[in-house]
Amino acid sequence: MDLQSLGKLAKEASYELAITGSEKKNAALEAIALALEANQDKIVSANKEDIQAGKEAGLTEALLDRLLLDETRLAGVVSDVRSVIKLDDPVGEEFDGKLLENGLKLSKRRVPIGVIGVIYEARPNVTIDIAVLSLKTGNACILRGGKETIRSNIVLVEVIQAALKSVGLPETSVQYIKSTDRALVGELLKMDDYVDMIIPRGNAGLQKFCKENSNIPVIVGGIGVCHLFADKSVDQEKALAIVANAKVQRPTVCNALETLLVHQDIAEEFLPKLHAHLAPMGVTLIAEEKAKAILGDKATLAEAGDFDREWLCLNLGVKVVADFHEAIMHIRTHSSGHSDGILTNDFTIANKFINVVNSAAVYINASTRFTDGSQFGLGAEVAVSTQKLHARGPMGLQELTTYKWIGIGENLIRP
Amino acid sequence: MDLQSLGKLAKEASYELAITGSEKKNAALEAIALALEANQDKIVSANKEDIQAGKEAGLTEALLDRLLLDETRLAGVVSDVRSVIKLDDPVGEEFDGKLLENGLKLSKRRVPIGVIGVIYEARPNVTIDIAVLSLKTGNACILRGGKETIRSNIVLVEVIQAALKSVGLPETSVQYIKSTDRALVGELLKMDDYVDMIIPRGNAGLQKFCKENSNIPVIVGGIGVCHLFADKSVDQEKALAIVANAKVQRPTVCNALETLLVHQDIAEEFLPKLHAHLAPMGVTLIAEEKAKAILGDKATLAEAGDFDREWLCLNLGVKVVADFHEAIMHIRTHSSGHSDGILTNDFTIANKFINVVNSAAVYINASTRFTDGSQFGLGAEVAVSTQKLHARGPMGLQELTTYKWIGIGENLIRP
Repeated sequence: MDLQSLGKLAKEASYELAITGSEKKNAALEAIALALEANQDKIVSANKEDIQAGKEAGLTEALLDRLLLDETRLAGVVSDVRSVIKLDDPVGEEFDGKLLENGLKLSKRRVPIGVIGVIYEARPNVTIDIAVLSLKTGNACILRGGKETIRSNIVLVEVIQAALKSVGLPETSVQYIKSTDRALVGELLKMDDYVDMIIPRGNAGLQKFCKENSNIPVIVGGIGVCHLFADKSVDQEKALAIVANAKVQRPTVCNALETLLVHQDIAEEFLPKLHAHLAPMGVTLIAEEKAKAILGDKATLAEAGDFDREWLCLNLGVKVVADFHEAIMHIRTHSSGHSDGILTNDFTIANKFINVVNSAAVYINASTRFTDGSQFGLGAEVAVSTQKLHARGPMGLQELTTYKWIGIGENLIRP
Repeated sequence: MDLQSLGKLAKEASYELAITGSEKKNAALEAIALALEANQDKIVSANKEDIQAGKEAGLTEALLDRLLLDETRLAGVVSDVRSVIKLDDPVGEEFDGKLLENGLKLSKRRVPIGVIGVIYEARPNVTIDIAVLSLKTGNACILRGGKETIRSNIVLVEVIQAALKSVGLPETSVQYIKSTDRALVGELLKMDDYVDMIIPRGNAGLQKFCKENSNIPVIVGGIGVCHLFADKSVDQEKALAIVANAKVQRPTVCNALETLLVHQDIAEEFLPKLHAHLAPMGVTLIAEEKAKAILGDKATLAEAGDFDREWLCLNLGVKVVADFHEAIMHIRTHSSGHSDGILTNDFTIANKFINVVNSAAVYINASTRFTDGSQFGLGAEVAVSTQKLHARGPMGLQELTTYKWIGIGENLIRP
């Protein structure tokens, strides 16, 4: 596996993609959609081998389900590709244009970033997602999926490359690191001559590894330790519905709720209601001491570190706070900066909350589950960024672009 | 030097700055301006000690001049502070606001980044610049200047801190790493719990060190290997003026010209003119073989690596290219992505150039010297970014901010 020459080829492909118009890029995406349909049997059969190997390796049912790419799911993926075709291409937009006093006609033009390296786990549909969103925005990409789906991914990338070739675009626009050697991830992170951005889509360990070992800018994200604060003025019935939605709808995703902070003035009344509402849904309350004192054996006492965990299951941390200030201090200390919200009917407190809390998404009286590219109307989602530079929160097509300044003069020198 | 507690204090200060209004931030800047005036003697005297130590250490006259902060220069710095007061505060702006079909009122709000770490060299005015631009945008900062100006910098930061205290803002909003121990830079780069962005302002070695050792996003920049391509259709007289401006006006800065590419059809005629125009200004032409063959002993033959160097002096690389394509290939290989331009009267070629070249700033018939915050009308400049994420080219106040998504619902759950 010669990663350097793979990087060089990706960079060269990126130069061609950068000057490819929307029509041709969309033709490439349609060719990919058709090729995925035409190669359905090959893809599904490679996936079956992955599933079989996963079973032999003793993977859990939940993980095996994430690996699965059957006919139905593949049809869904193809339909997603066609949705991306319909989205506007952000590349080429000019903005902040002005004629300066010094005579320079200046503007910013939106351009592709170049080469995007994506390291991800498990789900093979990510392979198609990332390839398609990168191509739509004129970026080349280098993909590195998990070892559990390597057979599926290799076939998928072959199909994509053949489709690219059929429309006259470089096959090297989408490349896959076919070895499961972990050292290659470390090598990829050092290839700043060829790769412009790294997106790790995976657990906290992968995020940390990329942050600490990359010479290339890394979009850290997808780790959600999310909070809701039920203020004393909250409409308790509505709060129960929002908390249930945030916790139960899809507990394994990053915008699911980890911790509910409850104002002490309502804790005695609200916490038993909370338990009555959530217990039938399978939720276990993990309570700090004050909440535990109220809930008794309806809750498990929280251990050290519990309030820093992304649960990814039906556990819910519960903590009684003395006031707004204590709620803010808790969020500041424990939030991963993904999504945090307040449930309140007090206008002043609500405003204060959105002024003070600095997470990628801050909510008043809404579920944290809204932090999502499609919910936000972005049409697509590459990742959810929890860092502060370049992009925050759900990243759509625009976040796969950068800009360049264009200055036009009539033979202009600086005075 | 306990860098961890310094970082913690900066983070805490950043929370307060983030909710401080423009009026109070401007009052702090005016207090700083007044304090710099009131402490002029103390500052100038500390700077004299730095200059004396520099002389004893055998620093060059050019470097000693960069260290100098006398009464006149300090007055200039104070005047710059008052200019920043007059600029609009980007913090708090809301944009991309929309009411989504799912009922969520969504917008992005511009907010401070948090804590900015800046590592810089030589010039003590950078201490004031960075502190003032950070405060204006509600960011705390941790500064680490060069050892040559440590006495000046310590006094400047003391003056700033006293001014902050006088208006009731945390002194820890601006902190200085008072030790010259190089290991502390490495430690700062790992403090991702407290620092949100690193800006290295210095030579290529510092930039590389930060990129390779930081867990925190780094804004790489300020290294300019800049090109102009004189196409065959160029107005030669005007081209001479632009090339002279780009090379000679201020050869030690990053937007100065490194390399002139000349179309072979005009090389025989243009290169001797170029020499006649630039030689009296002290420029030495460093030519590749074809250009050397034309220029003879009017040029020095380029050595390996010369076309990758940022000259920072009156040398100018000169290369004859066969056509547009060869010019582009040279720029792709050797440009640092700072500023590159074409000199031409051919509309099609000009357009092709700005489409194909992906540098932070791309010019048609204008000097590379325009790549500058004040020339671009940004009012201020924190750094010139040559990387592609977050900000490209001159970074003004807005580039010291990020955004958060604000979602407001009437007790809204995700369907």
